[in-house]
Amino acid sequence: MRVTILGNNSALPAFGRHPTAQTVTMYGEVVLIDCGEGTQIQMQRYGIKWKNVNHIFISHMHGDHYFGLPGLINSMSLLGRTAPLNLYGPANLKPIIDAILQAANTELKYPLVFHALPAETELLADTPTFTVHSFPVVHGIDCYGFLIEMKTRGRRILPEKCMEHGIPSEYFEQLKQGKDYVGAAGETIKNELVTEDGPTPKKYAYCSDTLFTESFLHIIQGVDMLYHESTYLEADADKAAARYHSTAIQAAKIAVLANAKQLLLGHFSSKYKDLEIFAEEAMSVFSGTIVSVEGVAYDI
Amino acid sequence: MRVTILGNNSALPAFGRHPTAQTVTMYGEVVLIDCGEGTQIQMQRYGIKWKNVNHIFISHMHGDHYFGLPGLINSMSLLGRTAPLNLYGPANLKPIIDAILQAANTELKYPLVFHALPAETELLADTPTFTVHSFPVVHGIDCYGFLIEMKTRGRRILPEKCMEHGIPSEYFEQLKQGKDYVGAAGETIKNELVTEDGPTPKKYAYCSDTLFTESFLHIIQGVDMLYHESTYLEADADKAAARYHSTAIQAAKIAVLANAKQLLLGHFSSKYKDLEIFAEEAMSVFSGTIVSVEGVAYDI
Repeated sequence: MRVTILGNNSALPAFGRHPTAQTVTMYGEVVLIDCGEGTQIQMQRYGIKWKNVNHIFISHMHGDHYFGLPGLINSMSLLGRTAPLNLYGPANLKPIIDAILQAANTELKYPLVFHALPAETELLADTPTFTVHSFPVVHGIDCYGFLIEMKTRGRRILPEKCMEHGIPSEYFEQLKQGKDYVGAAGETIKNELVTEDGPTPKKYAYCSDTLFTESFLHIIQGVDMLYHESTYLEADADKAAARYHSTAIQAAKIAVLANAKQLLLGHFSSKYKDLEIFAEEAMSVFSGTIVSVEGVAYDI
Repeated sequence: MRVTILGNNSALPAFGRHPTAQTVTMYGEVVLIDCGEGTQIQMQRYGIKWKNVNHIFISHMHGDHYFGLPGLINSMSLLGRTAPLNLYGPANLKPIIDAILQAANTELKYPLVFHALPAETELLADTPTFTVHSFPVVHGIDCYGFLIEMKTRGRRILPEKCMEHGIPSEYFEQLKQGKDYVGAAGETIKNELVTEDGPTPKKYAYCSDTLFTESFLHIIQGVDMLYHESTYLEADADKAAARYHSTAIQAAKIAVLANAKQLLLGHFSSKYKDLEIFAEEAMSVFSGTIVSVEGVAYDI
């Protein structure tokens, strides 16, 4: 599981930084979270293939989080997409997308399946690879965070042990699911002899944009990585509060309270050219802090 | 009068080329024509200041011509704009912009004055610096070209002659308007003694996107520069026709028929990496052809 940052700036593009967008990659499947202006170009730049994207999550209706969406949706159609695309966003996103498509007389070449975000915490997506829950955060308008949990791929096969016991590879899928092997002569090989525990599935939480709040702490408890917005430095804490944003130190406090293993900061105000101080301030509270850089993929 | 190309590609961004946007600068005032995704970033990159932009023209409702508009409108507000912004576009652009602003609970800090494009050729804008007429072109949906005509700044002052005749500089504005000077003692200095003809005001026509058609030739006759879309090369003339686009040779034919002084090509399909052949093909018909390059300012 890894996160690639496509845009780490807040409302105004500045210093080569773009509005918010990021992808989460799990077993080759890509989930896109937010889609600021220019996301399709950033995807090209950093080698994120639209064919691997089947789920897009939009946190809220401020433009720096979705103005790249109409272009991406359109381009996928022009490039020949036929697979359904699941779009999760605030209910008022759909009529805007519909109006844009209608004005262009565009009929997409693939099904665009819209899912309105529920007001309360809810299971949004459940695929063989991952689940996603949305949860409300506190911003000037309706705004949601996302908790992405990878699913286990089951137990890990020990190929040498399997050979030793003469288990053919077509049984591996059943072994992964924890089943014992029963041979042609009726002999049973216990599962734990030929497999071991698979890796623990990872959890990633995305919290942007939000005021400092403990309201969703119970949902993001123990995540392997927490992305939390940090629009401002501490000297501008009053500005952060007034605009329903957080500071780097506030983000770090949430990471501590949530027992997160790592903290990824983003959504930096265009008033800051140099981002080093974000790391300094946040690390005074939580040492596992990363100041996100566009184009970089962070392993979770 | 000069044109700066911010995006010269068609629907899909490719090879570092962006969707359509360009500016026309006259006496420091900037007119923006079309506003594809990423235009505000391209403006930053090429030093086009939003403060100098008071008029934006959107040719039609295909996304590659306006998906950068909501972001630019928003950014101008965040950056403290208070001066009115005139937006000219198809009538169905306004409800989309309104819905986007409403969903974000955004109230712009400046008046956004919307002007719906009329079905037939009409005077759209008349400022002290320029006039703009719109005219219908032939595309899959309602689509318009624009004719921009600079206004004369009047006669050119000959400062040495003025000094010779003792004319104070506060009279220069009247001299520019062609008036004679009458001194305190009642003596008259003929205007033509102290001024000469000013430069001939330039005309620029923007034609994108359109099928090859002679329907608007009478409007663009004699322009100093013609921008005409050339999505395809001649080998794809059938594709151009089917998709209501033009080839480079067709654009060149329009330049010949319109007696244009120069032809600027753009809106290149993402199927072409190398654009040299566009110049070759068009110049076989019209030698004054320029293949537009992003970031370059072309003097008219």
